[in-house]
Amino acid sequence: MSGAAVATAPESEALSERVAAAGHAPIAVDAMGGDDAPSVVVEGARRAWDDGTPIILVGRPGELGDVADIPVLAASEVIAMDDDPGPSVRRRKDSSLVRSAEAVRDGWAGAMVSAGNTGAAMASALLRMGRIKGVSRPAIAIPIPKPSGRPTVMLDAGANAECQPEWLVQFAIMGVALARTRFGMAKPRVGLLSIGEESVKGNGLVKSAHALLESSPLLGATGAPFVGNVEGRDLMSPDVDVVVTDGFTGNVALKTLEGALSGIVGLIEQLAGDDADQARPLLRRAVDELDPENTGGAMLLGVNGVCVISHGSSSAWAIANAIRVARETVLADTVGALASLVRP
Amino acid sequence: MSGAAVATAPESEALSERVAAAGHAPIAVDAMGGDDAPSVVVEGARRAWDDGTPIILVGRPGELGDVADIPVLAASEVIAMDDDPGPSVRRRKDSSLVRSAEAVRDGWAGAMVSAGNTGAAMASALLRMGRIKGVSRPAIAIPIPKPSGRPTVMLDAGANAECQPEWLVQFAIMGVALARTRFGMAKPRVGLLSIGEESVKGNGLVKSAHALLESSPLLGATGAPFVGNVEGRDLMSPDVDVVVTDGFTGNVALKTLEGALSGIVGLIEQLAGDDADQARPLLRRAVDELDPENTGGAMLLGVNGVCVISHGSSSAWAIANAIRVARETVLADTVGALASLVRP
Repeated sequence: MSGAAVATAPESEALSERVAAAGHAPIAVDAMGGDDAPSVVVEGARRAWDDGTPIILVGRPGELGDVADIPVLAASEVIAMDDDPGPSVRRRKDSSLVRSAEAVRDGWAGAMVSAGNTGAAMASALLRMGRIKGVSRPAIAIPIPKPSGRPTVMLDAGANAECQPEWLVQFAIMGVALARTRFGMAKPRVGLLSIGEESVKGNGLVKSAHALLESSPLLGATGAPFVGNVEGRDLMSPDVDVVVTDGFTGNVALKTLEGALSGIVGLIEQLAGDDADQARPLLRRAVDELDPENTGGAMLLGVNGVCVISHGSSSAWAIANAIRVARETVLADTVGALASLVRP
Repeated sequence: MSGAAVATAPESEALSERVAAAGHAPIAVDAMGGDDAPSVVVEGARRAWDDGTPIILVGRPGELGDVADIPVLAASEVIAMDDDPGPSVRRRKDSSLVRSAEAVRDGWAGAMVSAGNTGAAMASALLRMGRIKGVSRPAIAIPIPKPSGRPTVMLDAGANAECQPEWLVQFAIMGVALARTRFGMAKPRVGLLSIGEESVKGNGLVKSAHALLESSPLLGATGAPFVGNVEGRDLMSPDVDVVVTDGFTGNVALKTLEGALSGIVGLIEQLAGDDADQARPLLRRAVDELDPENTGGAMLLGVNGVCVISHGSSSAWAIANAIRVARETVLADTVGALASLVRP
């Protein structure tokens, strides 16, 4: 297929078979989003396809190269990495991002994955899929890997630079839904990111949110305990499972983690000198385990569908991984669980 | 000496000789502050004393153990780690913290060092030494070590949970003074911590501060360029020297760095398995180089004197290091440089 966008799912024998075997609708992959799109994205999608995941690539068919048997949904427009999200999404109705979100809305894709413009991906998902009832603002959740096993779910990692205290309570409930369905934690412990353990510590937002989290009947009903304030050093602690914060603080914390990771690896290589070759495989494994991108990238929670957002600099491996995460999230019905927990 | 507090400097032959040789008044060390005070603090002070640094220990003489030749300034009261800072400092006029700050104010100590209650240390310094003219709020500056050599100075790392945009401009100037006098950077590059490089990214505080930093005649007069927004991953980048932020975000970022450091070291040890013994010395060196505490701990800038604040969990080694930092800061006349740059 090629040319104008279509309003129905692309069909192929290969896809139907995969959908039947996988038990879920295909993952819509924004082929045009990312620093090295479409080539790296297509390569990542091919890997996931080779592993049996049902996929549709969304983008300009003539530019995608060898897509193997993967069906393509044609979308004639592209939203660039530095385009202004709101206006782009409103105007470029035939963009790969908007078409991906529509595919999820219309039910013939189970999830969307993009390594493109983060703001535009969020806006597409929000405008096309809509918000889940009871959610004031969707938030980006990120799993922070830790040595002790299951990750910490941190949200908001960047969707909302400024937040109201009551949104943080909703973030907590959304985080509980993700921790429960994706990571098998029945009663994840919820912490509030602050600058001291005492409830009087923090800024105005945190103090108000602390009181709301302590008394929220909705959060209480989930059975997940609120363990109070946690600090930046607790993000990788085994003592907390879900950490809520505003999107400004969360994004700074996430990127600080990423920077620390490459900083310490750089320093160890430097210190190791001639022994660096020996140390490198070990460091590589540590980085792979701790890199949030490799754990599955960011997920927009609170919209009525699954939306996984990868780094613009994602490798083919990271794209394949994001597709795997999207697939697992569909199968775990995270969105359904979230909707039933957050409804007032 | 023992018993009631005195209003004059403790004198000893050893101290006078040291002051003459070092070229600065002694460092007042709060012997009662810290998780393992006074023993660990006294041990750290002894190490610095053995290296020739002039010191006076401030605290309860009967509880200090073997202080060698170090003079003691008696202070009968102690402010505990979890005491409420404001009231404690106002009421416990004969506490080791308040007496340390007074020693600096009165000129017979060159600096104070405490591993005690951070809030009370800040309040003591602020109330007894006073603010430097042109400074609305003192801020905690922390040097973040990086593989590339000279550290990044980040402030505020926790003094002010909520900030006005114009305070961030003052923080920038204070950070320039520290980077210049302590780390020899003539024209340190100043960045604003945000969640994207574009000036439109961030919360309201950051957007307002961005505009002020771009146009500040005072900052411009320092010759230090404002390089715009930076992100969490840039804290250890070679491309920025001074990073300004509010005390909430800064504290979260600092503690996230600390947590990431121990998290990755734990993971590498775990991955290394039987090879961990081999990897451990290398890891130890990396941790020592990157641990902010080992680089010198936190410094309260904007008060009329030098105040170094160490972690409550400081080892004797860290205390000795904090004393060294205090000493270098006195000799570099950071306070004088700051006062001349920030005055409107």
